[in-house]
Amino acid sequence: MKILLSNDDGVHAQGIKALYEELIKHFDVSVVAPDRNCSGASNSLTLMNPLRAYKVTNGFTAVNGTPSDAVHLGATQLLQPAPDLVVAGINHGANLGDDTIYSGTVAAATEGRHLGMPAIAVSLVSNQPKHFQTAAVVTAKFIERLLQHPLPSDQIININVPDLPLGQLQGIQVTRLGHRHKAETMKKMQDPWQRDIYWYGPLGKELDAGVGTDFHAVANGYASITPLTIDMTAYKSMAKMTEWINELSL
Amino acid sequence: MKILLSNDDGVHAQGIKALYEELIKHFDVSVVAPDRNCSGASNSLTLMNPLRAYKVTNGFTAVNGTPSDAVHLGATQLLQPAPDLVVAGINHGANLGDDTIYSGTVAAATEGRHLGMPAIAVSLVSNQPKHFQTAAVVTAKFIERLLQHPLPSDQIININVPDLPLGQLQGIQVTRLGHRHKAETMKKMQDPWQRDIYWYGPLGKELDAGVGTDFHAVANGYASITPLTIDMTAYKSMAKMTEWINELSL
Amino acid sequence: MKILLSNDDGVHAQGIKALYEELIKHFDVSVVAPDRNCSGASNSLTLMNPLRAYKVTNGFTAVNGTPSDAVHLGATQLLQPAPDLVVAGINHGANLGDDTIYSGTVAAATEGRHLGMPAIAVSLVSNQPKHFQTAAVVTAKFIERLLQHPLPSDQIININVPDLPLGQLQGIQVTRLGHRHKAETMKKMQDPWQRDIYWYGPLGKELDAGVGTDFHAVANGYASITPLTIDMTAYKSMAKMTEWINELSL
Amino acid sequence: MKILLSNDDGVHAQGIKALYEELIKHFDVSVVAPDRNCSGASNSLTLMNPLRAYKVTNGFTAVNGTPSDAVHLGATQLLQPAPDLVVAGINHGANLGDDTIYSGTVAAATEGRHLGMPAIAVSLVSNQPKHFQTAAVVTAKFIERLLQHPLPSDQIININVPDLPLGQLQGIQVTRLGHRHKAETMKKMQDPWQRDIYWYGPLGKELDAGVGTDFHAVANGYASITPLTIDMTAYKSMAKMTEWINELSL
Repeated sequence: MKILLSNDDGVHAQGIKALYEELIKHFDVSVVAPDRNCSGASNSLTLMNPLRAYKVTNGFTAVNGTPSDAVHLGATQLLQPAPDLVVAGINHGANLGDDTIYSGTVAAATEGRHLGMPAIAVSLVSNQPKHFQTAAVVTAKFIERLLQHPLPSDQIININVPDLPLGQLQGIQVTRLGHRHKAETMKKMQDPWQRDIYWYGPLGKELDAGVGTDFHAVANGYASITPLTIDMTAYKSMAKMTEWINELSL
Repeated sequence: MKILLSNDDGVHAQGIKALYEELIKHFDVSVVAPDRNCSGASNSLTLMNPLRAYKVTNGFTAVNGTPSDAVHLGATQLLQPAPDLVVAGINHGANLGDDTIYSGTVAAATEGRHLGMPAIAVSLVSNQPKHFQTAAVVTAKFIERLLQHPLPSDQIININVPDLPLGQLQGIQVTRLGHRHKAETMKKMQDPWQRDIYWYGPLGKELDAGVGTDFHAVANGYASITPLTIDMTAYKSMAKMTEWINELSL
Repeated sequence: MKILLSNDDGVHAQGIKALYEELIKHFDVSVVAPDRNCSGASNSLTLMNPLRAYKVTNGFTAVNGTPSDAVHLGATQLLQPAPDLVVAGINHGANLGDDTIYSGTVAAATEGRHLGMPAIAVSLVSNQPKHFQTAAVVTAKFIERLLQHPLPSDQIININVPDLPLGQLQGIQVTRLGHRHKAETMKKMQDPWQRDIYWYGPLGKELDAGVGTDFHAVANGYASITPLTIDMTAYKSMAKMTEWINELSL
Repeated sequence: MKILLSNDDGVHAQGIKALYEELIKHFDVSVVAPDRNCSGASNSLTLMNPLRAYKVTNGFTAVNGTPSDAVHLGATQLLQPAPDLVVAGINHGANLGDDTIYSGTVAAATEGRHLGMPAIAVSLVSNQPKHFQTAAVVTAKFIERLLQHPLPSDQIININVPDLPLGQLQGIQVTRLGHRHKAETMKKMQDPWQRDIYWYGPLGKELDAGVGTDFHAVANGYASITPLTIDMTAYKSMAKMTEWINELSL
């Protein structure tokens, strides 16, 4: 099986190297990843400029674009034949709860799914991640199982692994996304010219981190596996809205 | 009611001006938008650099960041009191089907929703949009109705309006997202130094554009209104996956 | 006479508008300028991506690149026939002494000179510039004189005008570049995650700002006019270096 | 002697590695370089955002900014004690004639000189450079000689080496900058949406490449060494201009 491996921390990051070294033991793996750190890139695309690909010193292929660009270019142009699976990570830091929508790692997986391939995003939950090997092993084992139990074509997998030695991992839980309270997080400062500047600050507290959420699993030493849909239609609201929309006269 | 109006085409775009001029007839409206065109920005955030805000010549407030940045900064720092509703648009061009995940317009609305406000994205479906006024009127009328029928707190509204004079609009339909076939869309060219470059090309054909989809509504002269969820958990797969995940031994 | 007017503060800046409105009284003027603020851009070029030009709401032409890009594209592709003179400004702030090498305004003029045209950079010396009209009038009058006294083909003109009402200007002085002491100017701070960050701070004191320098002229209420060379060869060192280079055996 | 080594091709480039490996045999060398390719950056500075520094996998220090930023941050903040000499390169490609003003490599050296240190820019003249070792050896030998013959404090050194094995180098020549004809070099193309785009094309022919120029030296197999001034004042025009400026009445 042929895997396209990408990430959002860039082609020189430690996390993608660790995952490559584990996956290459079991699969045919090609790395196509952004040439720089793209954390927070979400599903952004490089629309007005062209993309370029080039080999870097570690043998991986760098693309001058976003995680979605790297997967799209790799899967449709650079790899022949096309890959069977897209894996993104290991991200340096968590992709839990609401934050998944900002994640370039999850976006890389989403892009793979849009192009017709099953896809997995993997993150190591820590501000200073150390145990990449734990996340790499969980991912390799999960891939083997996934081959037996294919996902619906509108879903991807989001894996978050606590930053622990493999032996201390408590197990694996299937979870839903929790939620975070974000509104208080900007920090106002001044630059050296006394001009106002604003930074996103450290993340807010979890608002919904109860049993069953990804936050809860990771906090208790479990690897969290969340199936995500890529079809954002809110089907359950359609009928009611269809009713009241008729009140609206143009 | 106080509206925060943003977009992804930038603070100088024609679409946001047209929507402002319509909404200001009915509501209290403040514009906070990116200082440049951010099409394709998705939910990307400016994490490593600070944000700045400044007034531009048309009286609107520009932010040196993405659509999500503009909404976050506007809603949490710049506007006092905080807005009651976030509106993003009018986008110059469609945000239909799978393409919504790349949209900075939809992302701006999503950011508003994450911060606790109802939120609406509005797009005019055309490569060379002309009838911004049609989309502006549909939006103003829709907002009045929405106030009577509030959405669940994990949903936003995605409106796409055909580029027609208001009198030629066939009506409004509540729709689901269609799907597009994307795999064939990159175009390989060479720059003047004969180096390979790759562009995203014009969009693929619709694969799923049948009755009930946003593509179908717009193609038939209707404004399309799609409720979108911001919780991407694929609940329907959780039970089955929980079963087979136990097969996985670490 | 046909003038290509550009700047580095971007096509929406107040300074370029003020200069346009004065020059158009006397000359044929076309504006081609960067689509965003490019302060500190120096002579940088956009080499790996293509340039695009588009009209903005004020009728000027914006280019998605640097000041040098805007002049190069305007002079060689967009304007037919080619311009006779390139003017850059009015910059919001000084371009004096060593700082000229970082200036996008001076760079825009340099680009014009490289393409075969006489060229002038104009700056208003103030952190919160007000009297653009003063700099605009000085520039218009200077251009008329320059037509009678053409410069050598390897030189451009750098004008700095104090931010005073025209009636308070003491006159015009031809000056040399002064020098500034720069080494102490970085400011170390921490971002909200306690990571070290470094900013350029407010500029150092002038080290060489005596009679005859541009610093001195402006500080005393005079418009400063400095002829600059674009040939950086240090001719006076060539003979001596040729001597001792022979000691070097490979 | 302590050397700050930087470049404009980025901290992962082959040229800076080759130069490091040669210089470290003779001197105390620290590398602080941009985290990405900055070709064409000229003297541009990162003024509106902060800089950050971090170690990369090869032990060098990367800065998220331009070549001038990397030298400024390295020399004034990161290295204790401050370096005695700044070296920039080996650039992948020539920095000859007029093109020096666009060069990030020459800019890195200029920044060092502004901060009070002697400074050298080194380039390997080839589109696909191979013999970095030749340029590295020439540079190491030149530095030893330069210590005996210090340059005036307003000058830097620009070295260009032909891409030949060391044994085929014909010698070293002290040169002046030649000139290139640039006006015809843009190439108009269309992107996949039929929108006009413009690229800088391959460089124009040399207009002034006669005996004594850097172009001529390199074309004949010699390493070219050009002393450059960082004071751009055109002293020879000052007297005449002072005369006629008096004609100008405000």
